[in-house]
Amino acid sequence: MWFTSDNAAPVPPPVLAALTSVNEGFTKGYGADDPTLAVQTRLRTLFDAPEAVVHLVTTGTAANALALASLCPPWGAVFCHEAAHINTDECGAPEFYSNGAKLIPIAGPHARLAPEVLAASINATGESLHNVQRGALSLTNVTEAGTVYSATATAALAGVARAAGLPVHLDGARFCNAVAATGARPAALSWQAGVDVLSFGGTKNGLMGVEAVIFFDPAKAWEFELRRKRGGHLLSKGRYLAAQMLAMLDSDHWLTWAAHANRMAARLARGLAARGVTLTHPVEANILFPEWDAGTSARLRSEGAAFYDMPGADGREGARLVTSWATSEAEVARFLSLF
Amino acid sequence: MWFTSDNAAPVPPPVLAALTSVNEGFTKGYGADDPTLAVQTRLRTLFDAPEAVVHLVTTGTAANALALASLCPPWGAVFCHEAAHINTDECGAPEFYSNGAKLIPIAGPHARLAPEVLAASINATGESLHNVQRGALSLTNVTEAGTVYSATATAALAGVARAAGLPVHLDGARFCNAVAATGARPAALSWQAGVDVLSFGGTKNGLMGVEAVIFFDPAKAWEFELRRKRGGHLLSKGRYLAAQMLAMLDSDHWLTWAAHANRMAARLARGLAARGVTLTHPVEANILFPEWDAGTSARLRSEGAAFYDMPGADGREGARLVTSWATSEAEVARFLSLF
Amino acid sequence: MWFTSDNAAPVPPPVLAALTSVNEGFTKGYGADDPTLAVQTRLRTLFDAPEAVVHLVTTGTAANALALASLCPPWGAVFCHEAAHINTDECGAPEFYSNGAKLIPIAGPHARLAPEVLAASINATGESLHNVQRGALSLTNVTEAGTVYSATATAALAGVARAAGLPVHLDGARFCNAVAATGARPAALSWQAGVDVLSFGGTKNGLMGVEAVIFFDPAKAWEFELRRKRGGHLLSKGRYLAAQMLAMLDSDHWLTWAAHANRMAARLARGLAARGVTLTHPVEANILFPEWDAGTSARLRSEGAAFYDMPGADGREGARLVTSWATSEAEVARFLSLF
Amino acid sequence: MWFTSDNAAPVPPPVLAALTSVNEGFTKGYGADDPTLAVQTRLRTLFDAPEAVVHLVTTGTAANALALASLCPPWGAVFCHEAAHINTDECGAPEFYSNGAKLIPIAGPHARLAPEVLAASINATGESLHNVQRGALSLTNVTEAGTVYSATATAALAGVARAAGLPVHLDGARFCNAVAATGARPAALSWQAGVDVLSFGGTKNGLMGVEAVIFFDPAKAWEFELRRKRGGHLLSKGRYLAAQMLAMLDSDHWLTWAAHANRMAARLARGLAARGVTLTHPVEANILFPEWDAGTSARLRSEGAAFYDMPGADGREGARLVTSWATSEAEVARFLSLF
Repeated sequence: MWFTSDNAAPVPPPVLAALTSVNEGFTKGYGADDPTLAVQTRLRTLFDAPEAVVHLVTTGTAANALALASLCPPWGAVFCHEAAHINTDECGAPEFYSNGAKLIPIAGPHARLAPEVLAASINATGESLHNVQRGALSLTNVTEAGTVYSATATAALAGVARAAGLPVHLDGARFCNAVAATGARPAALSWQAGVDVLSFGGTKNGLMGVEAVIFFDPAKAWEFELRRKRGGHLLSKGRYLAAQMLAMLDSDHWLTWAAHANRMAARLARGLAARGVTLTHPVEANILFPEWDAGTSARLRSEGAAFYDMPGADGREGARLVTSWATSEAEVARFLSLF
Repeated sequence: MWFTSDNAAPVPPPVLAALTSVNEGFTKGYGADDPTLAVQTRLRTLFDAPEAVVHLVTTGTAANALALASLCPPWGAVFCHEAAHINTDECGAPEFYSNGAKLIPIAGPHARLAPEVLAASINATGESLHNVQRGALSLTNVTEAGTVYSATATAALAGVARAAGLPVHLDGARFCNAVAATGARPAALSWQAGVDVLSFGGTKNGLMGVEAVIFFDPAKAWEFELRRKRGGHLLSKGRYLAAQMLAMLDSDHWLTWAAHANRMAARLARGLAARGVTLTHPVEANILFPEWDAGTSARLRSEGAAFYDMPGADGREGARLVTSWATSEAEVARFLSLF
Repeated sequence: MWFTSDNAAPVPPPVLAALTSVNEGFTKGYGADDPTLAVQTRLRTLFDAPEAVVHLVTTGTAANALALASLCPPWGAVFCHEAAHINTDECGAPEFYSNGAKLIPIAGPHARLAPEVLAASINATGESLHNVQRGALSLTNVTEAGTVYSATATAALAGVARAAGLPVHLDGARFCNAVAATGARPAALSWQAGVDVLSFGGTKNGLMGVEAVIFFDPAKAWEFELRRKRGGHLLSKGRYLAAQMLAMLDSDHWLTWAAHANRMAARLARGLAARGVTLTHPVEANILFPEWDAGTSARLRSEGAAFYDMPGADGREGARLVTSWATSEAEVARFLSLF
Repeated sequence: MWFTSDNAAPVPPPVLAALTSVNEGFTKGYGADDPTLAVQTRLRTLFDAPEAVVHLVTTGTAANALALASLCPPWGAVFCHEAAHINTDECGAPEFYSNGAKLIPIAGPHARLAPEVLAASINATGESLHNVQRGALSLTNVTEAGTVYSATATAALAGVARAAGLPVHLDGARFCNAVAATGARPAALSWQAGVDVLSFGGTKNGLMGVEAVIFFDPAKAWEFELRRKRGGHLLSKGRYLAAQMLAMLDSDHWLTWAAHANRMAARLARGLAARGVTLTHPVEANILFPEWDAGTSARLRSEGAAFYDMPGADGREGARLVTSWATSEAEVARFLSLF
């Protein structure tokens, strides 16, 4: 009953198999290998984006920080939700990579931004020489609260940004879960909604540490490559990253693994609700935030459950539960049986 | 006949097997997993350094740049050979991670520094407010010319640095090859010779992309952790890096793979010399730099050899050949048969 | 009737006279001149701080950003009021100089921080590897709302910071006005209250562009010097900065000029209140924020008044008025006569 | 007999007078004042450059580092002479402001670059992802050896840079002396020769600390403004910088002060040569480098001469002498009388 994070799970068998398959003979280095080139082709197809440029890195933090540094100048403001991973969990990586850009944290229920609040925040960032300048918008889908932006919601927010002349980044560490949750096509949730650069996550969906940064507008892609190299994020043996990503893209695994995780979360949510447990946020993907009576967390842990504490409304005891491709129905059932 | 780089080779079977073995169940993230902890224990033992702190990253550039940023302030000078990887092949990563430290390139035959030349360079960097300040020494062993520093030579250079109050970093992307070449114990080639931080390379010795940064003095290790996180180099699924490193440390593979690479290089060197081919640098590890008549490179490539061009003395046509754990005797023989 | 800012005023005659006096013969450069040394002696005496180290720069932004960069690591959080100049008016200078530290904006009425709110903000900044780390506290006195911290209030806030292990910076662009307002001794408002580094402003109190950064704890002063040089803020002809600062310190000008400015603000405040004009913030120093009926600003400007617009509560039309050493009683009277 | 530096001199009377003149009434801040606008007009005229954008800063280091940061990306190489001030005397300011650009020091007699050596250095900086990229050329005129580039020589070097796609910066801390030395028009020594941005020095020619950064191509000027603000180099009371610069531009003072300094240096050079003193570099502007027998420096100092030690060829005892607008014929004569 491990619900700490989707990155606590092992990797699915096809990922291991792909590493074995690709481990044949000598090859070119630094991303000039065939599997890396194939990833670009595959993602262009998946996203209906024949001009997109794709680069692989090993962490979501690197994907986000490098992408934002390419979009936003050092004196720029990055508008984001106050709960955004870039704002709370990257130890200042965006500030570091951008040489000091300023994140503007914006509040909003369930970790979602509202277009009018975003617009107000952008407008409040003047254009005088004394302020940081308007730099970029960074969205997150699935959000940190486990909620999801629809294609329409994404387009509304991106539209606010673009109207102000700002490029749009999407932190899609759980983008596959968002696609599974909405049923939208990948293109609809990204570039068609106004996203310029997507951090397309593989790690939380089953890979060992592989994220694809997708530039739908290739103009900044060479700059990104230089930043990636300079950040120490260009691996010489690209094939081992690429093979994993290809394995995830094969046979619609990217979607089925994410859909499974979402389904397990929904099952947990329904079960908990049926047992009278309050959920702090709507459960729309693979994360849920139950609140319960004091002492419950300790009891659950003594039964073998693993999760992070996350106080609920009014400081009630609570938890964050995350499901993954590897979460089994049996685990879910056993967890629910503890209530 | 791939001799482009040791990173062009596939990974040895034990590395793949280790990934499979470690892919069991859920585990803690971000380096708190058991395999990551085991790596530290194993490297402490290998280096007779019970206080050492070990952190894994995926590239040598990250290892070097993060280590140097921890040792050298933004206004510091990093003394290094002009051919050092940090100076020529990292797209400014040390400058980026250190927030603008200045590399002081020093000449020296066969990519080796001489103590008196190093001392002169340090002395020429004044201590006035107007100059960059003396920051750190960065050595490389095996050097970019394929030569090796003995323990004595390392100690002489590190001694110059320490006498000037400078910490010492060692870029050991091919440290295993240096150990194999010298027969010295790992401790003798590192901390006992005055090295404070070692980039201990796994990638060029058979791993998919794993380097261990070893702080023999743990005082800076927490700062390094923050820099690594902030650089996007802390992987959530640490077990997959650690398992590879453990596989390399098992059964003395780290040494036998490197020794094999060195042996293949020596065989190439002897064969080429016997055929009248000049070598630009002494062949002491797994890299060699033959010079030959114009047209030879094209001919060799047409026969299936892969390598990088590297003009020799007086601009003669030449090449860089690198051997690896995967270079076979048959390949070597076939390559020599082309002369 | 110029009330745009205290930096819109000319400089007092003694400042000009001091430049003439000091313009004799040749002298050492880069701060080794006698007037620069005398400034340090004079400020040590004024602050009862015989160990303090003093460095001059030409702008408050430089003073603040360089001071904070010396106190807070790149991965640190700088706690400050959301209205702080460092947060709103320096185009990201603190982030730039610190290589990406993160400002944590904290709300509080009248631009003042409350100790318990500060403590909550510090506590909410965890100490995990994933967050930015607790870095420093930056206070501002006089605040951007024209309010003042007493010595007691300063000590309470600094105490919260120090209890959490954080150093304390004080942006004293209008520190002289704060002394004049509180009647406290300079020491009581700074190091005795727990301030480690003070940006002691001269520019807004009548100098052409001179600020003294005072390190009460000299441990970081050399680092500051290197950062200042590297930031291009070490002037070769230090005597011309120092002479101005000495002129301000002579004959208690620093206090009388500031007290005059405060008095003019109080007179404006009383006069406006008597005429039924609401003031958004308490008037405690030399800044006031009146609100008035729509159209008033245009009318006042047509009569020759200069000031910045500053909407009041509920978006009412309003202004910011700043007085200075040069504000005359006649100007004040004339302005009030317009109501 | 102060020959330490041209920045050791007092300022000429017209500079002081200008400060008094401009100290009237209230004015706009942050460069929106009339004198600052007038400086731009005057420099556009002086340089026959009606589109040029001019910004003032207080130090040459700030001028150079901010200009280079605007021209060269963080991953760029700045080609410069190894003796360049940016390389040796700015404590890493260019690296800091550019977020880690790499200075490529190039040798050349008398601190001058040769076009073919520059071209070779540029060519040796590959365009692969692994290297820093070609960024910018930075020239210095007058050079650190006191030699001068003619308009033709400047054009030849700038031509090499532009052919490689590089923008050209000119460190003109002593640009006025170069104009005086060559008799060339300012335009001919700058934009007509291919210079994109000029650091036009006022400080070494008599101002208290004022340098004009002139963007002949205004495309980058707004970025420069943001960098300047963020660097803490935008003074609120711009009139006091501008007034000094205007005073220097009035009545051809800029030229006559520099010409005087050059003349005093030439007189020293002739006198020393007549007395058998060797000069290390040709004396073309206001700096000279005599070599003499051991013990001479101490003797001269005991007679009241001030200068910096600068060992000559083969380590002989030597000095650097700098003349200025304030160097008198009597001082020169007295110094020569000591030989």
